[in-house]
Amino acid sequence: MGQPERLARARAILDAEGLDGLIFSRGAFKRWLAGFALADPDDPSHGYAGTLVLTRGAALVLADSRYVEQVIAECPGWELVHTTRPAAPELADVLARLGVQRCGAEAAVLSHSTWTDLAEAAPNVELIAVDSALAGLRIVKDETEIAALGRATAVTDACFVHLLNWIAVGRREVEIAWEIERFFREAGAEGLAFSTIALVGPRAAMPHGEPSDERVVAGQVVLLDFGARVDGYRADMTRTIFVGAPDDESRRLYDLVLGAQQAAEAAVGPGVAGTIVHGAAVDHIASAGVEPFGHGLGHGIGLQTHEAPSLSRVGYPGQSGGTLEVGMVFTIEPGIYQPGRIGIRIEDDYHLTAGGLVRLTQSPNHLIAI
Amino acid sequence: MGQPERLARARAILDAEGLDGLIFSRGAFKRWLAGFALADPDDPSHGYAGTLVLTRGAALVLADSRYVEQVIAECPGWELVHTTRPAAPELADVLARLGVQRCGAEAAVLSHSTWTDLAEAAPNVELIAVDSALAGLRIVKDETEIAALGRATAVTDACFVHLLNWIAVGRREVEIAWEIERFFREAGAEGLAFSTIALVGPRAAMPHGEPSDERVVAGQVVLLDFGARVDGYRADMTRTIFVGAPDDESRRLYDLVLGAQQAAEAAVGPGVAGTIVHGAAVDHIASAGVEPFGHGLGHGIGLQTHEAPSLSRVGYPGQSGGTLEVGMVFTIEPGIYQPGRIGIRIEDDYHLTAGGLVRLTQSPNHLIAI
Repeated sequence: MGQPERLARARAILDAEGLDGLIFSRGAFKRWLAGFALADPDDPSHGYAGTLVLTRGAALVLADSRYVEQVIAECPGWELVHTTRPAAPELADVLARLGVQRCGAEAAVLSHSTWTDLAEAAPNVELIAVDSALAGLRIVKDETEIAALGRATAVTDACFVHLLNWIAVGRREVEIAWEIERFFREAGAEGLAFSTIALVGPRAAMPHGEPSDERVVAGQVVLLDFGARVDGYRADMTRTIFVGAPDDESRRLYDLVLGAQQAAEAAVGPGVAGTIVHGAAVDHIASAGVEPFGHGLGHGIGLQTHEAPSLSRVGYPGQSGGTLEVGMVFTIEPGIYQPGRIGIRIEDDYHLTAGGLVRLTQSPNHLIAI
Repeated sequence: MGQPERLARARAILDAEGLDGLIFSRGAFKRWLAGFALADPDDPSHGYAGTLVLTRGAALVLADSRYVEQVIAECPGWELVHTTRPAAPELADVLARLGVQRCGAEAAVLSHSTWTDLAEAAPNVELIAVDSALAGLRIVKDETEIAALGRATAVTDACFVHLLNWIAVGRREVEIAWEIERFFREAGAEGLAFSTIALVGPRAAMPHGEPSDERVVAGQVVLLDFGARVDGYRADMTRTIFVGAPDDESRRLYDLVLGAQQAAEAAVGPGVAGTIVHGAAVDHIASAGVEPFGHGLGHGIGLQTHEAPSLSRVGYPGQSGGTLEVGMVFTIEPGIYQPGRIGIRIEDDYHLTAGGLVRLTQSPNHLIAI
């Protein structure tokens, strides 16, 4: 799917939602739709980083002087409008010039003050939250995207092989996190897809704990949740490795988590609701009398680390009917967390194809003891 | 200033603004007010990362299960409320329980959808944007903060010394950026204060260009804008170094930028408007018949890389009267950008004390050729 097809897909939302204009503020959309590739697109520390405006007849990038050269180089066919702020006056002027009256925008991305500033500066424009409609826009990946996701998972797999040789008793969590980032960058990745989780022993029971000065200890687990970002696309993988041979109970718990992932894989198919897949994994663990994970089973992955679809108890905005479809890419990441004792999670990235479910992550997911 | 004093200062805003409750959503406030220290506090890829609620009688942290252990450890004296979403239902319930009717919140930080969700879930609470009032809360730094800022600038200075020996003809911009990050992490800093800018030759004319595969070339400049983050506090420094001896015109431009910085330093004082200081630097360059920088001259720095005060053409929300006062910490960063030819910027961090302006950055800022 080339740029023209993506534009057509985005413009179809104008008809579907009865709009005559769309404002895109999320970095993932800027890259997907216009080729405008920002390094950390939604990091607020960079300040305002541009806006796309799309109507039936026009496609514009609004950006301040910092991005002028980049927009000219990366976004051929897009009209560049110089601006300094996310709402007034330039964006309001553009909407007036284009005669936009009903305009879709991302209410979950724009700050409340930007939204109200724009509403005030463009009193004749009705702003409509279209987050749900837009969540479906990038949900099915094209070949270019699958290739980029493949490069991201490949670098992540290579890093895991390296870590198996590198991690040893005495290494600190922060050192491991840093080694992962170093590996990605030296392998040519843009960087991390997200802040690495590296947790030792009972600390692995915190589903999103941050790396500390805690050291790897014999007889305990190391939980690693990490992924590379390549050409904007992200990998997301979790492994729980044992330092020394696990005891029987730990082995049983690991096999339960792996079994839950396999139960989920078996449940996946076109037209199957994400909630059903989530339930299959939860049931597998619960039926053994063990408390299953409290978080969602999985999430879509692409230009964002977390995007549609969702495999969880609840649905996801924009996921039509909440079902999985051919072309979607998502994680499956069941876990068991026993506070003060142990945490185990296994996470892989998958591509649902017409021929079945393809695991993009290539690393082994059976129990590994180092 | 200890935690009690910070709490008192925050509660004074309740009186000043006629409120009975305050919601803090920005990571910098969570750390400053409650000690809740998040690694990348405002990175949306982490999802919802907690909220503070402050009334005259209560102080609460709302956070989901990922942060429970951290909040208990870091925020003694704060009541922990378990929640999963930024607005409904827990936050609305808390506001109802505390009898809050007029509640201040950060309109520039909360998304429009979170704001409207909360307004809907708490129909008896009037939500009031207090961004301007809050911008002044952290504007004067206490001794603990100055010490942390000093550690951040010291690591950044040490990195610059290393870079002077390390940068050579043939190094790529991305390699330099990576070397800076590696240095910071190995020196014990939390990481980067912001994405490093490393630009070679005419590319330095882009005020915020991103590092590319471009290589260092003899006879050209390397512009480096970088800083470390230590204990949440950030340094921000720019140097433009010459590879080989500069020609006369480049030397003249460098001296103009340095002169502009010195003119700004001389203009700074308690009660002086940031706009005046900005103007002093602009005038110094313009009076030599050279086009001055189009960006602001400087910005406050602390737990955010960019915060109040502002030294620019316009004022800054919350900067009472827009003047500089004793205790403020800010950058001074004039530049000259000649597209296709050269870019020069010099940036240092300063602390305005009762005894005068103290430069926190220790690196030399005279012309250096390597």
